[in-house]
Amino acid sequence: VEAQDGDAISVLMEPLHPADIADYLEQIDDSARSRLLSVWKGGVDGDVLSELEESLREGVIDGLEPQELASAVRDLETDDVVDLLEDMGAEQQGAVLEALDDADRVAVEQSLSYPEESAGRLMQREVVMAPQHWKVGQAIDFLRNEDDLPDDFYHVVLTDPRMKPVGYVTLGKLLGSRRDTDLSEIVEDSFRTFRVDQDEGDVAYAFNQYHLISAPVVDADERLVGIITIDDAMAVLDEEHEEDILRLAGVGEGSLSDKVIETTKRRFPWLAVNLVTAILASLVIAQFEDVIAQFVALAVLMPIVASMGGNAGTQSLTVAVRAIATKDLTGSNVWRVIRREVLVGLVNGLIFAVVMGVVGVLWFGSPVLGAVIGVAMVVNLVIAGLAGTVIPVALEKLGVDPALASGAFVTTVTDVVGFFAFLGLAAMVLL
Amino acid sequence: VEAQDGDAISVLMEPLHPADIADYLEQIDDSARSRLLSVWKGGVDGDVLSELEESLREGVIDGLEPQELASAVRDLETDDVVDLLEDMGAEQQGAVLEALDDADRVAVEQSLSYPEESAGRLMQREVVMAPQHWKVGQAIDFLRNEDDLPDDFYHVVLTDPRMKPVGYVTLGKLLGSRRDTDLSEIVEDSFRTFRVDQDEGDVAYAFNQYHLISAPVVDADERLVGIITIDDAMAVLDEEHEEDILRLAGVGEGSLSDKVIETTKRRFPWLAVNLVTAILASLVIAQFEDVIAQFVALAVLMPIVASMGGNAGTQSLTVAVRAIATKDLTGSNVWRVIRREVLVGLVNGLIFAVVMGVVGVLWFGSPVLGAVIGVAMVVNLVIAGLAGTVIPVALEKLGVDPALASGAFVTTVTDVVGFFAFLGLAAMVLL
Repeated sequence: VEAQDGDAISVLMEPLHPADIADYLEQIDDSARSRLLSVWKGGVDGDVLSELEESLREGVIDGLEPQELASAVRDLETDDVVDLLEDMGAEQQGAVLEALDDADRVAVEQSLSYPEESAGRLMQREVVMAPQHWKVGQAIDFLRNEDDLPDDFYHVVLTDPRMKPVGYVTLGKLLGSRRDTDLSEIVEDSFRTFRVDQDEGDVAYAFNQYHLISAPVVDADERLVGIITIDDAMAVLDEEHEEDILRLAGVGEGSLSDKVIETTKRRFPWLAVNLVTAILASLVIAQFEDVIAQFVALAVLMPIVASMGGNAGTQSLTVAVRAIATKDLTGSNVWRVIRREVLVGLVNGLIFAVVMGVVGVLWFGSPVLGAVIGVAMVVNLVIAGLAGTVIPVALEKLGVDPALASGAFVTTVTDVVGFFAFLGLAAMVLL
Repeated sequence: VEAQDGDAISVLMEPLHPADIADYLEQIDDSARSRLLSVWKGGVDGDVLSELEESLREGVIDGLEPQELASAVRDLETDDVVDLLEDMGAEQQGAVLEALDDADRVAVEQSLSYPEESAGRLMQREVVMAPQHWKVGQAIDFLRNEDDLPDDFYHVVLTDPRMKPVGYVTLGKLLGSRRDTDLSEIVEDSFRTFRVDQDEGDVAYAFNQYHLISAPVVDADERLVGIITIDDAMAVLDEEHEEDILRLAGVGEGSLSDKVIETTKRRFPWLAVNLVTAILASLVIAQFEDVIAQFVALAVLMPIVASMGGNAGTQSLTVAVRAIATKDLTGSNVWRVIRREVLVGLVNGLIFAVVMGVVGVLWFGSPVLGAVIGVAMVVNLVIAGLAGTVIPVALEKLGVDPALASGAFVTTVTDVVGFFAFLGLAAMVLL
């Protein structure tokens, strides 16, 4: 299909959801994509652009004529326009802004003035609101006569005369109530507002925690300036999870369609940190060269202790990082969690100490070696539980993202402690 | 406050959202919780129970009288009742079911007959529907006269005479249209239905991908049986992420309030697998005891190669597992991704080979040792990129959850390859 020009592609793409078209564009390779886009003129509309991942969006936008881009963008809600503009060069931004209605342009420019990843960037400006003293009938008549309602809205926000939101009414309640009911009688009690400068992660957390569907956004004077809907909050939640999982693995942000060089650059820092960590551990080993030279079995067994500690530490650390992200790990239960992790390390350590003791005896015929590795195992697993919880909690207190930095610290601790405990004990007992 | 009896607690708790009350109950320790609950009679209502994590819910439910439990549960939507019943013993289940209206009981029992973690369990039975031939005015009058509307609903589902859903209308469109408009004129084109037996993870994925707010659920005969709303889908998405992140770390499911014994049991299997892996690696080292005995520097440096490989492998593996979960890694781009990961491993390997070569020379004054560790580093990072992508993809094809099992396989590969490449090369060159 791609080789030939034609409207055939439009016919094929037409029934697809914009999100699926975007996924398809992401999965084909670069040359196929540029051929497809050059043939499929005008096919990429604003919805598809919104769904594309950022690294590709730039390239696709570059390939569009300013008018194509402007017409693609005109039908989007303001939050989606803001999302697109964030990635554009100054020239493209100007072209898009010019294509918008005056009112939309002002709204978009104002949104762009809020910090990145804030509620102000996430919200859409199209809000359906009504004065708090209205009755159901007035609100329904108002909605029926209003031409320019947003595509999706779920609440009517009630405001006081100074535009401060004071509550909201679900459309379901509005439809189910008598026309002479006061709107203030049927407001929802789950009402919450966000401030324009609040972090989008906190917004997503609150949507999930309180089962919100939409929530008004207010500026510093508590005036209503926009509304955030749950689908945007869900997308943020998804992104935050992705960041957490990738940071824990030391991958950084990025996507499957990144090039080799970009990906290498992103992964390099973590590996470099790990190299320093590993060399630190090696320095510990180097202190015991004499013992190892006499008992080579130590060299054979020592990675086991370090590896078990690293794994146990990663377990504790992941639980802690996740619990910090979901606000489940707080000052009131941190000591209980630390105690639990240490006890878990102790119990698992004792079990594996027995196992490794037996292995040591069977393999090397040395009960002493078995005892040494067993004790080192217990020590390292206890330390792993301790470090795996304390380090992320401390980093969080210091304002460092625990998902990003904990891994390196925890494995350093478990490597150093593991090698030191095992080889140090061996030196004391065997020499 | 806790020491004294009284309604003081109710006054304190009253303004809190049920989700916050549940979080508070989760964070205090066991004895404080049971004291609080024994004093705060009747305080825990159905909403709080729904928000509690499963491991605590059982205990709290056990502490309630059957009547308290029944009254707590009566106001919940059917999906929340189902969620609660899943955790109860047969006796409690019976008490709750008896407390429900006949219609609700039948609905709940039917939902329980669907497989766990299916759309059928997730949906609520309270659906607002209308025949497809109705006009806007008829629908509005119907809604106004209906006493028992669900708490939250966002769409009116249109059905054909055989109860098959054929589309839906947003309440916003309903309110904004003239009374004589046909409902079929204002249906949304984003309409999607799910089948009762579909996996809840797929449902959550579709909600996020297609920005759905609610979606009807149909049985095997395509008849409408319920509706899933985005807040439930968001909760599932959150859970699935949590599972992925915990499985990647070998932690298994579980929560912060689990006891030491439960936690130990959950973490033990992964550590046991890791022990086998580590012993395998040790067996490789044991093959080279002679070389190590002569050149103890090898014992000092060998963990560095393995550790770098393990980290690089974890990076590739996390990206692959995440991309499989979001359906971004498919047959059409798997070879491109594998090629990229291998090339990234090669480039990073070459850089670190140079670094380690220099370290080898400076530390041990041996250019040969530097070269050996450099080459081993390149080999191991390339293999790490390959294994980190191929193993999760293969596990997924075999129907095994890649998040759960990939880690052990990948680190086995990088450990074995790392030690073998380094010590094997050293044996060839140095002996």
